[in-house]
Amino acid sequence: MSQFPISRYPVPDLDALPADILSRILAVQEKARFIPNVFLTLAHRPEEFRAFFAYHDAIMEREGSTLSPTEKEMIVVATSAANGCQYCVVAHGALLRVFSKKPQLADQIAVNYLHAPISEKQKAMLAFALKLSRTPELVAQSDYDQLKSHGYDDEDILDMAGITAFFGLSNRMAIVTNMQANSEFYTMARESKS
Amino acid sequence: MSQFPISRYPVPDLDALPADILSRILAVQEKARFIPNVFLTLAHRPEEFRAFFAYHDAIMEREGSTLSPTEKEMIVVATSAANGCQYCVVAHGALLRVFSKKPQLADQIAVNYLHAPISEKQKAMLAFALKLSRTPELVAQSDYDQLKSHGYDDEDILDMAGITAFFGLSNRMAIVTNMQANSEFYTMARESKS
Amino acid sequence: MSQFPISRYPVPDLDALPADILSRILAVQEKARFIPNVFLTLAHRPEEFRAFFAYHDAIMEREGSTLSPTEKEMIVVATSAANGCQYCVVAHGALLRVFSKKPQLADQIAVNYLHAPISEKQKAMLAFALKLSRTPELVAQSDYDQLKSHGYDDEDILDMAGITAFFGLSNRMAIVTNMQANSEFYTMARESKS
Amino acid sequence: MSQFPISRYPVPDLDALPADILSRILAVQEKARFIPNVFLTLAHRPEEFRAFFAYHDAIMEREGSTLSPTEKEMIVVATSAANGCQYCVVAHGALLRVFSKKPQLADQIAVNYLHAPISEKQKAMLAFALKLSRTPELVAQSDYDQLKSHGYDDEDILDMAGITAFFGLSNRMAIVTNMQANSEFYTMARESKS
Amino acid sequence: MSQFPISRYPVPDLDALPADILSRILAVQEKARFIPNVFLTLAHRPEEFRAFFAYHDAIMEREGSTLSPTEKEMIVVATSAANGCQYCVVAHGALLRVFSKKPQLADQIAVNYLHAPISEKQKAMLAFALKLSRTPELVAQSDYDQLKSHGYDDEDILDMAGITAFFGLSNRMAIVTNMQANSEFYTMARESKS
Amino acid sequence: MSQFPISRYPVPDLDALPADILSRILAVQEKARFIPNVFLTLAHRPEEFRAFFAYHDAIMEREGSTLSPTEKEMIVVATSAANGCQYCVVAHGALLRVFSKKPQLADQIAVNYLHAPISEKQKAMLAFALKLSRTPELVAQSDYDQLKSHGYDDEDILDMAGITAFFGLSNRMAIVTNMQANSEFYTMARESKS
Repeated sequence: MSQFPISRYPVPDLDALPADILSRILAVQEKARFIPNVFLTLAHRPEEFRAFFAYHDAIMEREGSTLSPTEKEMIVVATSAANGCQYCVVAHGALLRVFSKKPQLADQIAVNYLHAPISEKQKAMLAFALKLSRTPELVAQSDYDQLKSHGYDDEDILDMAGITAFFGLSNRMAIVTNMQANSEFYTMARESKS
Repeated sequence: MSQFPISRYPVPDLDALPADILSRILAVQEKARFIPNVFLTLAHRPEEFRAFFAYHDAIMEREGSTLSPTEKEMIVVATSAANGCQYCVVAHGALLRVFSKKPQLADQIAVNYLHAPISEKQKAMLAFALKLSRTPELVAQSDYDQLKSHGYDDEDILDMAGITAFFGLSNRMAIVTNMQANSEFYTMARESKS
Repeated sequence: MSQFPISRYPVPDLDALPADILSRILAVQEKARFIPNVFLTLAHRPEEFRAFFAYHDAIMEREGSTLSPTEKEMIVVATSAANGCQYCVVAHGALLRVFSKKPQLADQIAVNYLHAPISEKQKAMLAFALKLSRTPELVAQSDYDQLKSHGYDDEDILDMAGITAFFGLSNRMAIVTNMQANSEFYTMARESKS
Repeated sequence: MSQFPISRYPVPDLDALPADILSRILAVQEKARFIPNVFLTLAHRPEEFRAFFAYHDAIMEREGSTLSPTEKEMIVVATSAANGCQYCVVAHGALLRVFSKKPQLADQIAVNYLHAPISEKQKAMLAFALKLSRTPELVAQSDYDQLKSHGYDDEDILDMAGITAFFGLSNRMAIVTNMQANSEFYTMARESKS
Repeated sequence: MSQFPISRYPVPDLDALPADILSRILAVQEKARFIPNVFLTLAHRPEEFRAFFAYHDAIMEREGSTLSPTEKEMIVVATSAANGCQYCVVAHGALLRVFSKKPQLADQIAVNYLHAPISEKQKAMLAFALKLSRTPELVAQSDYDQLKSHGYDDEDILDMAGITAFFGLSNRMAIVTNMQANSEFYTMARESKS
Repeated sequence: MSQFPISRYPVPDLDALPADILSRILAVQEKARFIPNVFLTLAHRPEEFRAFFAYHDAIMEREGSTLSPTEKEMIVVATSAANGCQYCVVAHGALLRVFSKKPQLADQIAVNYLHAPISEKQKAMLAFALKLSRTPELVAQSDYDQLKSHGYDDEDILDMAGITAFFGLSNRMAIVTNMQANSEFYTMARESKS
């Protein structure tokens, strides 16, 4: 329904894609029932596509991370909203609804996490992520101390940093390509399961 | 589903309300099938309730305004998102979907109007509204000139200013009262009518 | 002495005004010996005029408020200076001098309340008002806690919010209309009564 | 009437001052009928006192400058207001009233020069001074081009820079010493001469 | 000479590294005669190490890019300085000296590219990179237009975006790990070759 | 090696200079083996030259100051980097290397003092200097309290303020004159003495 094309840049035909990229795309399509536009947009440059999704997986699917999928998506939504990235807020807002099973949470965090119904520990996590995302030059020892006072350890902090940093990259690529969120994301998981 | 009460402040019982306030609330309930929480929250102080809705109506229902309901709600959503106001983004996002019949537009404008599928003239309107909302001290003659170059006249500009100014007030009251958006607003008009 | 007209918008003749608006204007003129330009400027749109002054009175003359007239005007002057609103700083600076009987206080607060001779409790009030006015998205639970540690209660905080929010609206309308402060305000109450 | 001492730092007795400093102070006292507190405050460190006033005179009394005394004081008032310096806004506001013979101009420029009745050329001067004062890192070739398009030449720009830079220093010293403006400055030249 | 360890996080022994990571490290050591600390720091998490350097190479060594190595490093240095990242400014400042053969250029761009001896076209590139890095939410169509008016095309813009986005990620990881620049980088290529 | 002239303004011939100015310049040349460009640039206006260096000496060579030469230069480098002043960062970075005998310290502080190997007391000093330099309007009693909790006294604070304020002036004059740092400064004291 969007009046923009998926991307400001050329979107390759599926049958012109390298096999590994096509394979990844078909796998996500099978799971999601549609192809998220980030796959089509980034396929314009195959080397960057491969590195992007390798990084995504390394960060978001790291074995041993104690951050829950819901918490990871909270970071993505909060920082992407601050960076003004439509694709990431809409697509990861959908994932946040899916993981949290709270259909209002993504909109609440996108607008202002300070007024969202989350724990004080989660607010400390988002305060750090937003500071690192928006003013990295101000991050100081006191920020680590603050996170540790809430029970986070060094590896948790590195997880938060990785997610914040990777989606900061993602936000900027989506903005420059004018990447459009698929219409499926806007409505996904908006109703409570009950 | 929110874990917060409607308001940080006491919410009066309907049957304890002055007649004029109760009447306004029942009218909106009949039309909307629910009572938007802004009515219940502000009823805590009846004089302010009356002035608030009188102002709202004067601004939003001014006869002769050439701004469409969709455009007025665009201003509300864009400035409320910048001010971090959950209630206004969610509730007026719903109205923007209703008026525009574009189920994605509210989310797009809430995140970043620069990437929303709206006209250049509408972008100029939102640029002005955001400047007036966030940095009123910087508004200058060049802003009027810019708006007029897009075809807006003095009364249009006064309409934009009124909406921006009134919802700036509304945002701050919603933030301080921690006013919660009704769950109905989150899902309203999210599907295309076709 | 100003080289600007009272308002960028047409100012109606007194005898063309609706009776209730004329009556309000004549009452203020009798009390002040002049007509503050905000009345003439806003009379351009009678519905907005009525709502504006109803809101003003509800906020500034609320029975039971424990904020003194001096403290209310401190909020108006500090936030209006931050918003760059000539009319409100000059006119409400005059009122602050009148109420406080301290002829230097308005200028001191307009420039920098941190260096004004006011109490720590009043500084906490102004810190909150300025945060709510300039960065409402950052207001958090810690701000309420801070105010309460100084002895303010929930209704005091709602009073501060109402004044801040209403004069934020007023600042934006004065800026967009280029409303000029009456010359009387510049000199009013500048000498100590002794 | 201020509740603060003149300075947070010790103020030396006049008869303990070095002869050259005492002489300068007596000269200004004879002319002004009072001793501006900046002289008493800075006398705490005689070497800095001497350098400060030597710099002041070099900048403000440079022979051949085409900026009028009114324009120089406009720069001082506008930049000192942005820096939140009570002493400089109040004291140089008085001088701006004296030089301009416009009793409202200082207050208008202190609040927002964009709404002050000054020429477009003077607004360009103040725009440059405020940019250099608040965000020197952003000054670029386009700023010089803009000033030259209004008829300023290189030496005018150097005068603006010197005044802006020197009063930036002065603002910071007044803030750190909590220097209080003399009461005489608040009321000086507030009535039109006619 | 630094008083900090290389990283806030554990640095693995070389002989405990996976073969592919060790191989990459030995290759860079052979070329540079030392191991840049980014390799040792990121080896703490092998999956992220692999994705990081794959992304780095995809961005910085893309075949067909018309940006010169010097221009790519200009972007890295300017944006890393804005983000307050010691490692990236020092290490890529060294590379900028190596590629440009101008021993002062890195320091000039790190402090303020507006005063560096580079072309207007390069200044437009850095203005865009800094805007995308620091305020991605403000990037608009006018930015593309501006770049194209200087002769850049869509693929150039995507190269700039990729470098800016990737080093924004890199900056944040270096800040959170407190990654220290090797002493070799501080002095590398500081003398003119003549 | 710079492609810019020393200054945007005319640089007088040495033999056309007043005797006192020439004498000062020859003295610095004898000591440094070159003439720092700030002397040549400011000689364009002899009165300002004299006041500038008198102020410099009063601030930087005040007898009795407990701030070490290294600490004074830390303030200069940190605030000059924030203000985007090439000349001051490069020239005083050289002096910081000379005084501290730590060849990396200047670059570390220029990029981000929070990640430099300095004491907590020195970090408190730089936090204050940067706040006073960049946002003087926010300096408050709590800043003095913070400095005193680290062991600084009132005269130390006045020294910090003087250095910050004077180099704020210096930064702005260097920026407006486009003053170029001498090539000698870029390489001075970059090797450890051992």
